[in-house]
Order: sequence, then C-alpha cells, then structure tokens
Amino acid sequence: MENNCSTESIAKAVREYAGVRRKHAIGEIIHCLKLDSDDVLVSFGEDAALIKNNDDGILLAADGIWSMLMEADPYWAGFCSVLVNVHDIAAMGGRPLAMVDILSIQNEKVCHEVLRGMADASKKFNVPVVGGHLHPDSEFSAIDVAIMGIVKIEDAIFSHTAKASDRVIAAIDLNGRIHPSCALNWDSATLRSAQEVRDQINVMQKFGAKHLLTAGKDISNPGVIGTLGMLLESSEAGAEIELSKIPRPDLFSLGITFSQWVRMYPGMGFIVTAKEENVAEVISMFNNVGITASEIGVVNDTRHLSIKYNDKESSVFDLRKEGIMGLFD
Amino acid sequence: MENNCSTESIAKAVREYAGVRRKHAIGEIIHCLKLDSDDVLVSFGEDAALIKNNDDGILLAADGIWSMLMEADPYWAGFCSVLVNVHDIAAMGGRPLAMVDILSIQNEKVCHEVLRGMADASKKFNVPVVGGHLHPDSEFSAIDVAIMGIVKIEDAIFSHTAKASDRVIAAIDLNGRIHPSCALNWDSATLRSAQEVRDQINVMQKFGAKHLLTAGKDISNPGVIGTLGMLLESSEAGAEIELSKIPRPDLFSLGITFSQWVRMYPGMGFIVTAKEENVAEVISMFNNVGITASEIGVVNDTRHLSIKYNDKESSVFDLRKEGIMGLFD
Repeated sequence: MENNCSTESIAKAVREYAGVRRKHAIGEIIHCLKLDSDDVLVSFGEDAALIKNNDDGILLAADGIWSMLMEADPYWAGFCSVLVNVHDIAAMGGRPLAMVDILSIQNEKVCHEVLRGMADASKKFNVPVVGGHLHPDSEFSAIDVAIMGIVKIEDAIFSHTAKASDRVIAAIDLNGRIHPSCALNWDSATLRSAQEVRDQINVMQKFGAKHLLTAGKDISNPGVIGTLGMLLESSEAGAEIELSKIPRPDLFSLGITFSQWVRMYPGMGFIVTAKEENVAEVISMFNNVGITASEIGVVNDTRHLSIKYNDKESSVFDLRKEGIMGLFD
Repeated sequence: MENNCSTESIAKAVREYAGVRRKHAIGEIIHCLKLDSDDVLVSFGEDAALIKNNDDGILLAADGIWSMLMEADPYWAGFCSVLVNVHDIAAMGGRPLAMVDILSIQNEKVCHEVLRGMADASKKFNVPVVGGHLHPDSEFSAIDVAIMGIVKIEDAIFSHTAKASDRVIAAIDLNGRIHPSCALNWDSATLRSAQEVRDQINVMQKFGAKHLLTAGKDISNPGVIGTLGMLLESSEAGAEIELSKIPRPDLFSLGITFSQWVRMYPGMGFIVTAKEENVAEVISMFNNVGITASEIGVVNDTRHLSIKYNDKESSVFDLRKEGIMGLFD
C-alpha cells in the first residue's frame, strides 16, 4: 500500500464520499412510508425486502442508476441497472427471477444504448426483464429497475443480524478493470463468462442454504468500508477492521490510490460476517468462483466502525451519533 | 350525451390522445429485451408479468407517474403512483403484496408531499412500500413504483385471451370527481373508505377464482376505449362497441364532454370480457362494490376496434395495420 495511506485520510475519504453521504435521506423515507404488515419479514435497511408467501419467501428490491453514469456511458448504465439489482437478490441468498424497468427517454440513441446494455446483462445473468414502464417524452434520461427473487425464509441472509465476535469477510472479484467510462466502477462482470458470473451469484445462495453466514450485503456505491458501515448500522453493531487485509488488485499498476479503491463499486463484491469456525469454508467457496476473500476484522458492540493500519487506528463512523442511512435517527 | 358526439370525432380524439400515442414505443423495448424463460408465463402486453414459482404465480409490474402530474400536484402524484400499481395487480386477478419506490428528488417540499401521498394510498389499500431507491440529488422530480403480488396460476386474468363473441364490459366507479389538479383524472379512490377500495380491488380476485372472465385490464392513461384497444391488440382480436353504453356520470353538470370522459383515467375502472352467460353475474358483482358496469359490445375477429352511436360507426384502431403498443409490429 502507498505510504500516504493514513487511517485518518481513508476514514475522511469514506465518510465524505458522495456514495456514502447520499444514503442519508433514506431515513426520512422510512419514517414516512413504513407500514406494519405481518407478511413483511424485513424491509428497509436490507438489500431486498423479504415477504412471506405461505412458507416461501419472495424478495423485492429496486435500484436506480446515477444520472452521471447515464450521461457518461448509457450502455454501461443499462448493464449496471441489471447488475446492481441481481446483486441485491444475491446478497439476500436469493435466486433472482425477473425484473421490470422504468425508462425515461430524452434521446433515442441513448435509449437504444441503455436497452442494449440491459439486454446483454439480462442474458448474461439469465434474469429476464418482463415488463415495466416507459416515459417516452421525458426531459431527462433515467433508468431504474426493480427485481423479484425467491429464497427459503430460513435460508435468507440479512444485513441486520451481525453479532459481536463475528468475523468480517470482504469478498471482491479482482479479475477486472477500471471501467473506461467511470473511474469509480471496478468492472469484472463484462470480463467474465456467463457461467462464471452465474456461479458467483450462486455462491451466496449456497452460503444461505448451508447457513454459513451471520449477515451479508453486496458492496454498492458506498464502497467496501461504507457498505460495512451500513451493515453495522442495520445490525446496531460496530467493527474493527485492518485496511491491509481488504482484497485489492495491483493499485500501483492501475495508477489509483487505496483511498480510491475502497470507494469503488465492484462488479462482484460482498461484505459478509460469519462465525469464526465457518470463515475458512466461506473464503474457500468464494475463491472457488474466482472471488478473492479475506477476513478483515471482527464485529463488536461499540457501534463504531474503526479502521487500523500500521498500528494507527481511526473511527470512520460513530453509528451511535449518526447513522449512514438514518435508520434509527 | 351531447349532440356534438360523432363517432368520428370520438375515434379521432382517442386515437390522437397522448395517453394512447405514448404507448407505441413499448414495441421497441420488447424487441430489445425479451428473453425466453420457462419461468415467465406472460410478460409484455399484460398489466403485470406472471412468473411461475413451483405451483404458485408471482406477479410483477412497474408504473410511473407523468412528470406533468408531479409538477401539478405532488401529493396526488404520490397517491396515484400506488393506485396505478395496485390496479395492475388487481387487473390480473392477483393480491398485491408489496411495493418498492424509486424517487428522484429535486426539492424537499415536493418530496415530502409525494411521500405523504404514497403513504396515504399505501395505508388505504393496505399494500406496504418495503424499500426502494432514492436519487437524492436529481435535477428532476420523478416517482416510479414497482409492485409484487400473488395469484394462483389457473386463476390469473390476462389481456391476451379475449375471443370472438365474448362480451365487452366496461366497469367504472362513478362516485367520483374530476380531480382539482388534473382534468383527466376521475378521482373516486380518495372519496371512498379503505374498506370500499379494498373490496373493489378484491372483486377482480373473485372473478379470477370463479373463472368468470375471459380477459381483463385496468383502465389506465389511454382511457376506456384506448385500454380496450390495448386488450384487443394483445388478444389479436377486434370489437364493436356502443358509445352510449359506456358508464358515465352526469357530464352536463360536470361541464365536460363525452370525448373528455372517455380519455379519463378513472380511480377504479376495468375493461373485461366474459362469455355471454356470465355477463349478468359479473355486472352484479361489480355493482355490489359500488362500480357501475355495462355490457358495451362484442369481441370479433376483425382486429378493428369500432365504435357505434346513433346508427353511425367509426373505426378507432385498425390493429392489423398498426398496434397501439406495437406488440406485433
């Protein structure tokens, strides 16, 4: 790692990163919309909601694409709109079944590229788009996707269930590239075959079925540390992690800093927690599908996320004072 | 009905109405995105997709709100974002279980009003919003919702299954008002109690369970005639209907023309088809939940939608030449 990697500078970079800060308004939405229902087992704060349907579980999630990305590369925006939604279902240990899209079109060429990206990702992950809504005369271009999946209720993986002394595992497919259109996207999915990405999505279902994890979340816009912060907020827990253990490609040859790396959105990446006795099996199963995984730290009950490097330690989030999503504010 | 109601002027008004015309780009999207999957029983061209999950059916749909409405009345836009999605599941004979929302916020006050409208409708219909995605720093305000529901596969109601000689029934809750913020919204839902609107949504599930309909669709932006056109396009059929039989409130005292009425989006309205022997029971069940229903015509195999009034007849859509959604173009 580069010498200018101080825990304080990394903590600040993560804390102030837009990918993290922009999660905060979620709290107000939850406050307005939350409606108690016996069918809804989990909802806000999880990657997907889990709804009880007799003895089965149905997962439902939605994710949108930053307008920035839409402007920079509509094909990649379309591809990502599928990718991020498939991640949401995988993170819950579920099997993605179908998606719907909501497309706002300002310009026909942009629309065509977005659709091409969506179609390619839909084929690659074998998750069909089955309908949606079109705003054909929009003053802006936007693409949002919602996804439905299934999971056995007892096998579902949650964000809110990490407990003190659980081990934190970061898992990222390092076989990738900085996406040419977006310096904060680590693209691995387009470089992998359809079978490879499906196996990677599948591994989370296997963890669920074998009950190997105590919690899990896909690494999204807030990056690896920000995503762990969200998992800890949902779990009302804290953690201490060692920066040097976070899986990383050769940053020197890529020409990026560690601070950039930890804010990246990986094409396939998960933060999971597991009991100590299951860590080796989890890491080995990730490795078997081409995902590099390492134990990076331990969950505790401080409600602080602290990062360590070279005997220095800094607090990234004090979740007692302020949540990332504002779940409990 | 007013004297200036010629079949030709009505046909033209419906055909040229933006609510109808803007459906046309759907065809290109289907062409790009359609992916064959054994799990997907129906998809594009239906109000919701039906996905097989063992012996159960899961319904998935998405609907967005015109930006026009968002600007005119964000509370009503939020309310409608739930309403239109609940309609989509009801139209399939399904039970709506949960929704996710995608919210783009430009202005906090607008956001607050949208959320208030969504929350009120979510409570009224007892369908929870369980998650979603937020674009907190958008340059525009937009609200889109996706919904998931369940239905027994053998009880599902489709758009594509109307057959020649089936009767066409139009069903609209006439106990309403022209919404003060939108002259083309016939609002009945806010005037009804929670129990009343839930019973109205439920009646479609009863039709499904009793197998009383051959096809059905909720009346959406294209209005009563435009929606019938979409049903016929999906069914590759035609129909002849009598304008005077379309349920209508006292248009004179409302100060609107018949041509405006048939382009309205009703708060609760369905176009369904049924075998002749089931028409009376269907109409009576609609009436029992406060929805006025009438037999307005007959399905045929001409692939023309024709309207009749006072011995005059005009063709609204020639679905052999051009579809409304471009499903088969």
